[in-house]
Formats: sequence, structure tokens, C-alpha cells
Amino acid sequence: MATNENLSSIAPGNSGSGVSEDASLDAVWAELTAIRQSIDNIDAAVIHMLAERFKFTQEVGRLKAAHGLPAADPEREREQIARLRALAVESRLDPAFAEKFLNFIIAEVIHHHERLAGRPEPVE
Amino acid sequence: MATNENLSSIAPGNSGSGVSEDASLDAVWAELTAIRQSIDNIDAAVIHMLAERFKFTQEVGRLKAAHGLPAADPEREREQIARLRALAVESRLDPAFAEKFLNFIIAEVIHHHERLAGRPEPVE
Repeated sequence: MATNENLSSIAPGNSGSGVSEDASLDAVWAELTAIRQSIDNIDAAVIHMLAERFKFTQEVGRLKAAHGLPAADPEREREQIARLRALAVESRLDPAFAEKFLNFIIAEVIHHHERLAGRPEPVE
Repeated sequence: MATNENLSSIAPGNSGSGVSEDASLDAVWAELTAIRQSIDNIDAAVIHMLAERFKFTQEVGRLKAAHGLPAADPEREREQIARLRALAVESRLDPAFAEKFLNFIIAEVIHHHERLAGRPEPVE
């Protein structure tokens, strides 16, 4: 864990720092730490949600395999891309990011299924 | 939207389908639709959480720039990777995926800051 001392040492113009500058750095450090905790909370939530998502795609894979349905469904994928792009606009994100995100997740779904020999590769 | 008819048409051995086979396909379609709705809900939640995450990294960028702090913090990044890998194990995900996920998000953070000329590129 980076300490307040680490931050002080990397802040410019700190060679002759006085009390007020140290106090200011303490405040910056406190704010940065609080934001990082929020980022860490979000990352933990997202990782756990993605773990649930992969459980669902595995279930889709089992279902499709059991009923001889094709793994890929281009129409479903087009709908997902359009929907995620719209959600990105709504939440003030770059729509291109939402599409990249879906592609990233789909690549992982394919990777999962490649590791399970003989399984289809449902793209959800 | 793919319809039940679409699914019927792609299911093998359906050329002479009877009533019971149709009923079975209805059940499969209902289950697939329910799973897809869960996947869509998760994707919407994740997109909105990532939108919040990018707001926090923008705040980190402002804070670091205002106080002359370096954009990159390798120690923080090492901590994040270790933490996400542990979270992945806990949620039965591939730890390598968690690390890829963080790298994917960091690439987007850098992309955001490249679009904002003169801004630093905090890697959070």
C-alpha cells in the first residue's frame, strides 16, 4: 500500500515543505484514498457480476448443445450490441466502448468453451 | 428478435415435427429467453457501474493534475491486479481473466485521457 510518505516524496516542490503543505497533501491523499476505495468496490461488484454472467452463458451452452441448436446467433448479437450502445449513451459512456466491452466478454466466453472440449461456443 | 419459429427451423430433425416436439422447443425457447434476460440485466448493471468507475478515474486525473502528482502508480496497479485475481478465485473465475479485465479497463481510461488534451493518464 502506498503511504502518505510515498505521496509526499513524489509531490513536486516538496524539498522544503512546511506544515501547511503537508496538511494539503494529507487532504489530497485522503481524497485519493476514498476514490480508490470506491473504484475497488466497483471492480469487486463487476467481477462478481461477470462470474454470474459466465454461469449463465455456460447454461446457454448446455441448453443449446442438448437441443442441437447452433452456438452462434448473429441476430441476438446484433440486438445486444445495439442495446449496449444505447445504454452507454444513456450513462454518458462512449458507445464504442460498450461494443468493445461486449466483444471482450464474448472472447472470454469463447475462451471458456475452448477449454471445455466438445462444447459449443454460444456467443451471448 | 429471434422467434420461436426461427428456433424451430434451426433445430435438427424438425422436418416432420409433431406436437410434443413443438412443446419441447417452446420450453427450450422459454428457458433460453429467461437466461438471456438475466444476461441482459447483468450487462446493463455492469455498463452503469463502469460509467461510475470512469467518473471516479476522471476525478483521480483532476486531483493528480492539480497537485502535480504522477499519473501512473505502479504499486497501486500491482495491488489492484493481486486483489482482482483473488476476487476471481473467490468467485470461481479464471484469475487471468480478472487481470485481462483490469487491463481492458485501464486501456479505456488511457483512451479517455488521450482524448482530453493535456490531461494526465492516471491508471486506476
